[in-house]
Amino acid sequence: MILNDYLMSGNGYKVRLLLSMLGQPFEYVERDIMKGETHTPEYLEKVNPNGKIPALVLDDGRTLAESNAILIYLAEGTNFIPEDAYDRADMMSWLFFEQYDHEPNVAVLISWYAIKGLPEHADILEPMKQAGAKRALDLMEKRLSGHNWLVGDALTIADISLYAYTHRAELGKISLAPYPGIRAWLDRMTAVPGYVPITWTP
Amino acid sequence: MILNDYLMSGNGYKVRLLLSMLGQPFEYVERDIMKGETHTPEYLEKVNPNGKIPALVLDDGRTLAESNAILIYLAEGTNFIPEDAYDRADMMSWLFFEQYDHEPNVAVLISWYAIKGLPEHADILEPMKQAGAKRALDLMEKRLSGHNWLVGDALTIADISLYAYTHRAELGKISLAPYPGIRAWLDRMTAVPGYVPITWTP
Repeated sequence: MILNDYLMSGNGYKVRLLLSMLGQPFEYVERDIMKGETHTPEYLEKVNPNGKIPALVLDDGRTLAESNAILIYLAEGTNFIPEDAYDRADMMSWLFFEQYDHEPNVAVLISWYAIKGLPEHADILEPMKQAGAKRALDLMEKRLSGHNWLVGDALTIADISLYAYTHRAELGKISLAPYPGIRAWLDRMTAVPGYVPITWTP
Repeated sequence: MILNDYLMSGNGYKVRLLLSMLGQPFEYVERDIMKGETHTPEYLEKVNPNGKIPALVLDDGRTLAESNAILIYLAEGTNFIPEDAYDRADMMSWLFFEQYDHEPNVAVLISWYAIKGLPEHADILEPMKQAGAKRALDLMEKRLSGHNWLVGDALTIADISLYAYTHRAELGKISLAPYPGIRAWLDRMTAVPGYVPITWTP
């Protein structure tokens, strides 16, 4: 299988981190989003019509987009998805929270400060994103101040998904100082067998 | 089971529409988001710490948030989720697209124009949302101009999820005129057994 990805992308890192923890081999293909390499006619036609990474190409040539959908697909039938129906649904709930409440704030701030630079109207948009990031982290802290993992009592792909941008939040000028539960959970993640840093490729 | 919901919410309607199509009885509890009824200490403590509807309360008292996670939970083991692993992953991909690319643009514009009124800085934010809505609908049209349903060759919860706000897009001043594939699919949805309009409650 081929992973179309970009090294600085937390969305891509989620997938690389799970693949490493699963011990699943794959081919890494770098697509430089800063050079428009996910918006070429060939990429839109053959890999992802939505023009984004990560995008997985299966051995039969079929493609799969959306980082969290890729995580679900790869983790199906493994310990990274709970067997219990309620826990599985709770895990899904965190995955949708990640894409709606967390990524559009935390990831976007990281991108602005550490990768792309501030956009037009940053004076208006930046405080909105900071407020959104705070709300998302507050909700995570509520859970993680009393539990080791986001769902049930074991690591799931919800932890992998939310780890990706949370552990780099300070690059987006988002302080993790008020969040001891989150900080302990970040440390816990680095001790999971197969853990790799965001710069890792196979 | 109890559904905490708000009649004007497309996110809530997704769940009501699936429950109707499943013929599954439930109790409807209105929470007026315009009056802050999802931000009371009791709601945050007992129903959804994220302060949103829809939120499902199961018969054993456990709660579940995030509209698409609720759809997955309710549809598990039914015809509304494909059995094939790839199709299931493709369906998940559309569900994450819905929350990341579609809802934050289409639903927010509907909310501004038809429910809450335009926010501060609308002159800057409104064109960004319109551009995002156009990108999301363009992607849906690419699929629906050649297929009856978003995934495989049958209705799935991806269709239910994306129907909820798409069929009201014009309330957000988003024209559906350029999208014949989407318009035919909207008509197809209303012919599904158990279809109910957004104003429906049990």
